[in-house]
Amino acid sequence: MGIVLGPTQYGKAECRLVRIVRDTQRHEIRDLNVSTALRGDFAAAHISGDQSRVLPTDTQKNTVYAFAKSHGVGEPEEFGLLLGRHFVAGTESVESARIAIEEFGWDRIGEHDHSFIRRGQEVRTAVVTVSGSDEWVVSGLADLVVLKSTGSEFAGFLVDEYTTLPETRDRVLATALTVQWRYAHIEVDWAPAYDDVRRLLLRAFAETHSFALQQSLYAMGSAVLEARPEIVEVRLVAPNKHHFAVDLAPFGLDNPGEIFHAADRPYGLIEATVTRDDAPDPGPAWL
Amino acid sequence: MGIVLGPTQYGKAECRLVRIVRDTQRHEIRDLNVSTALRGDFAAAHISGDQSRVLPTDTQKNTVYAFAKSHGVGEPEEFGLLLGRHFVAGTESVESARIAIEEFGWDRIGEHDHSFIRRGQEVRTAVVTVSGSDEWVVSGLADLVVLKSTGSEFAGFLVDEYTTLPETRDRVLATALTVQWRYAHIEVDWAPAYDDVRRLLLRAFAETHSFALQQSLYAMGSAVLEARPEIVEVRLVAPNKHHFAVDLAPFGLDNPGEIFHAADRPYGLIEATVTRDDAPDPGPAWL
Amino acid sequence: MGIVLGPTQYGKAECRLVRIVRDTQRHEIRDLNVSTALRGDFAAAHISGDQSRVLPTDTQKNTVYAFAKSHGVGEPEEFGLLLGRHFVAGTESVESARIAIEEFGWDRIGEHDHSFIRRGQEVRTAVVTVSGSDEWVVSGLADLVVLKSTGSEFAGFLVDEYTTLPETRDRVLATALTVQWRYAHIEVDWAPAYDDVRRLLLRAFAETHSFALQQSLYAMGSAVLEARPEIVEVRLVAPNKHHFAVDLAPFGLDNPGEIFHAADRPYGLIEATVTRDDAPDPGPAWL
Amino acid sequence: MGIVLGPTQYGKAECRLVRIVRDTQRHEIRDLNVSTALRGDFAAAHISGDQSRVLPTDTQKNTVYAFAKSHGVGEPEEFGLLLGRHFVAGTESVESARIAIEEFGWDRIGEHDHSFIRRGQEVRTAVVTVSGSDEWVVSGLADLVVLKSTGSEFAGFLVDEYTTLPETRDRVLATALTVQWRYAHIEVDWAPAYDDVRRLLLRAFAETHSFALQQSLYAMGSAVLEARPEIVEVRLVAPNKHHFAVDLAPFGLDNPGEIFHAADRPYGLIEATVTRDDAPDPGPAWL
Repeated sequence: MGIVLGPTQYGKAECRLVRIVRDTQRHEIRDLNVSTALRGDFAAAHISGDQSRVLPTDTQKNTVYAFAKSHGVGEPEEFGLLLGRHFVAGTESVESARIAIEEFGWDRIGEHDHSFIRRGQEVRTAVVTVSGSDEWVVSGLADLVVLKSTGSEFAGFLVDEYTTLPETRDRVLATALTVQWRYAHIEVDWAPAYDDVRRLLLRAFAETHSFALQQSLYAMGSAVLEARPEIVEVRLVAPNKHHFAVDLAPFGLDNPGEIFHAADRPYGLIEATVTRDDAPDPGPAWL
Repeated sequence: MGIVLGPTQYGKAECRLVRIVRDTQRHEIRDLNVSTALRGDFAAAHISGDQSRVLPTDTQKNTVYAFAKSHGVGEPEEFGLLLGRHFVAGTESVESARIAIEEFGWDRIGEHDHSFIRRGQEVRTAVVTVSGSDEWVVSGLADLVVLKSTGSEFAGFLVDEYTTLPETRDRVLATALTVQWRYAHIEVDWAPAYDDVRRLLLRAFAETHSFALQQSLYAMGSAVLEARPEIVEVRLVAPNKHHFAVDLAPFGLDNPGEIFHAADRPYGLIEATVTRDDAPDPGPAWL
Repeated sequence: MGIVLGPTQYGKAECRLVRIVRDTQRHEIRDLNVSTALRGDFAAAHISGDQSRVLPTDTQKNTVYAFAKSHGVGEPEEFGLLLGRHFVAGTESVESARIAIEEFGWDRIGEHDHSFIRRGQEVRTAVVTVSGSDEWVVSGLADLVVLKSTGSEFAGFLVDEYTTLPETRDRVLATALTVQWRYAHIEVDWAPAYDDVRRLLLRAFAETHSFALQQSLYAMGSAVLEARPEIVEVRLVAPNKHHFAVDLAPFGLDNPGEIFHAADRPYGLIEATVTRDDAPDPGPAWL
Repeated sequence: MGIVLGPTQYGKAECRLVRIVRDTQRHEIRDLNVSTALRGDFAAAHISGDQSRVLPTDTQKNTVYAFAKSHGVGEPEEFGLLLGRHFVAGTESVESARIAIEEFGWDRIGEHDHSFIRRGQEVRTAVVTVSGSDEWVVSGLADLVVLKSTGSEFAGFLVDEYTTLPETRDRVLATALTVQWRYAHIEVDWAPAYDDVRRLLLRAFAETHSFALQQSLYAMGSAVLEARPEIVEVRLVAPNKHHFAVDLAPFGLDNPGEIFHAADRPYGLIEATVTRDDAPDPGPAWL
């Protein structure tokens, strides 16, 4: 029996990069949180403390900021590909690189040239993995908070000795969506694809008469796959943000789906994958 | 020398109340976080454990939910007044009540009747104090994140032996605004007043060429007072969310105000009050 | 009617300072979060953007770090006094300074000379105000989480039409204490005073048979005032972290105070002041 | 091409369970955060909204609380095994169950029988997976914050065109450890094993002269595997909580490793696995 080093990765997490595009008086802003992670032959650093094959995380951070200037910051998927390719091509010990990006949206204040307000809704995400000449892109969004005030049921479920939940034909359904979708290739126009997926998710959520959050998730994932042939897999994580109807009977009041307590914990947590039956192997796309 | 009880208050904090208005098929939603606090003659509870004059915090919570049904939930200022008056009028030991409300905005998904997305920008706030027949309303907003990509300087400041900061004629100015404004009376149309104050704050922030965040705050507060005669005092708290230009010279790149690191801590913290010179005494409005 | 500037302050918040004392091989560590705030004649900065009387917040930050080297970091009260005096004495426009410090405790790993583990319990706090030659010190602690599994009742309370809470003679009482105590003067041995106050608070919490959280707070504050003549006022803020006994009757189980759900929101919030009847005026100590 | 459902799971997350053991006057307390997740044949719920095979998450929550009474709460690994076996054995549609538990430690206040203070250091964790008759246990800890004030270097690293970091032979090394260890079987005395692993991790961190955080992690993982034959794999995640020496030269002061700024973001993030070369297949232990 011996003790061996298993999988490792290291990098610089959460480089908070703001890029102002000021080529004209009408500025643009990109606001990113960039995390790099490198995988490869770094055993010596772990076992003997030999750093000679280790590109410092400080250097990775510098690269993020320097690339933002020399290459600009386009869509997060593009920026991630640029960075990932650089680390794999430029450093012999690096076998693969994983670049994870969050983007925070800003809106112009009125039509002002250089004043902005943070949008505050969902965070746009991209995870890019480059391994040799192979490249994977998983785009996504996080913390998109949505709610249906009716059109949601939960009934006909399995009952055991610990079940006390009554059936309901009308409840509030609310969640904070984290969705990621994997592309089959990288010949994608990222920004319109993002906007379209977001629109498809919201429409499916709104229009599905829901018998369970599970069903809504499947409907959302399917809607994306049906409309976007370049997307082959959708993963959804959805906390069920319970809204409990308050019992007002002690006060002589009925409560026909009007007054709710929005609870914190515990919460249901539903996770689902919707995929094409011929989806290519994901490789390290999700790792 | 004796030991005595000083000021006290108690209540139920953070009642998460969601009110669905479903009188028609086109639902409306109000999403509040309501905190109640009562002041009065509660010394016996502290000193001898005698609860006979204490209205339980659980009862206060019940009242919030019951009132949401029996009176509806209009603007947070109105709902706060309703609750505050109830506690003061209905409970002999309660001398005054302070109702603090946060409201989270929701937008309709497209034109859907009962599906919503959380807006995610600032939180609307209201603090209502009722004491006997006197009533004070302080409205506000929290965490409105804004940024100017130019039109901001910082120069000509005091220099001592610990000063190393260079002067700048062009920097990024960003903050997460918390603003509260006190009304002279309660004969106010709360919702349009809120929208107008928010618009005035954003416009002043955008249009002020800023020599310091201090100046922007004063401009914002003044703009509100000039436009809204019923408002007599504005308090602003603004963390200076530093965006540091990254030194790219080691990589042979210049950085003319394009690439920034958005720092977390430390941060400047600027607090200011702008008021009318004839503002009525605030009494307990801010306590 | 005119618009005027009211009270203001500005400074650098949350300077995260770690001071290693390495005079011998057995290192010591102080881990502080220092916030400075200056008050004085800064109207020009607000009204006209004139910074000539403004000591930059960046300079304040530099001073914190430089003083940590040149003066060392002793107890947070002492370090706050040093900084406050410096800003008031050294800068003509500064009329008063408020230095707020949080300290995070570390323990040695075993008896190792230079390896430490963060203690993780309460945060020690100090707020120092220097105004001309006057000085105020308020020490404190935050987020000390304590719980009694019995010895707590809640009964005999006021009942109105919205009261549904049953009385209880045995409940779990839990809170996350924030306590601040004001000193009459600064001739205090800060570290043993802190340890003693913390011990007194914990002992009073433990030994008080509680008829309400209000009563426990008063007992804690009184215990401090009785034992420490240099302390003249104690302020306590205590969220009632509700532990609800779970109804297990549907499963044929009783629950005699054994199984609890620890709830998040809403929570009771109890605030109290205990003071000497001859306490000197607090001046700006609490502002 | 067809659209199909891929892997799913669902359950109740973050059931906050407090169990008081009050068989004698000297109470004991266990404070857990329990999350359940079930995997199995739930396609109908997703695709057609048919809930007939779905055990509600509300039932899962009830089961957590009922089991805490009927079986008691021992070590988190045991409680997880109890719950996991129940869901797999008791519900035909459930193929496997994953129970994730966090435990928060409490200490007695002095020698008091029923008064406690939350310990506040690391969170103890356990993840139990039950699939048919197979069972996996991964124990762990989260957020153990440790620091070495010397005995840490970083030098001899790879240098590219974006490298500006100077080498150092003496720096502060600090991290917030998340460590998980997989057991080969479940015939383990969980509590002493936990205490011993924690002790081994701390000792290895303290005693390793570190040439990189990577090396410290490997030393910690190896120490655990060498001492505990029942453990076959250790996974470590360690943010490098950078402490930057402050440049005090502008103030005429040197800074020989005494004054540091504790930075927030970005941070290095080092992840490593240390394993036995004959470790059994992990199966779903880490999923």
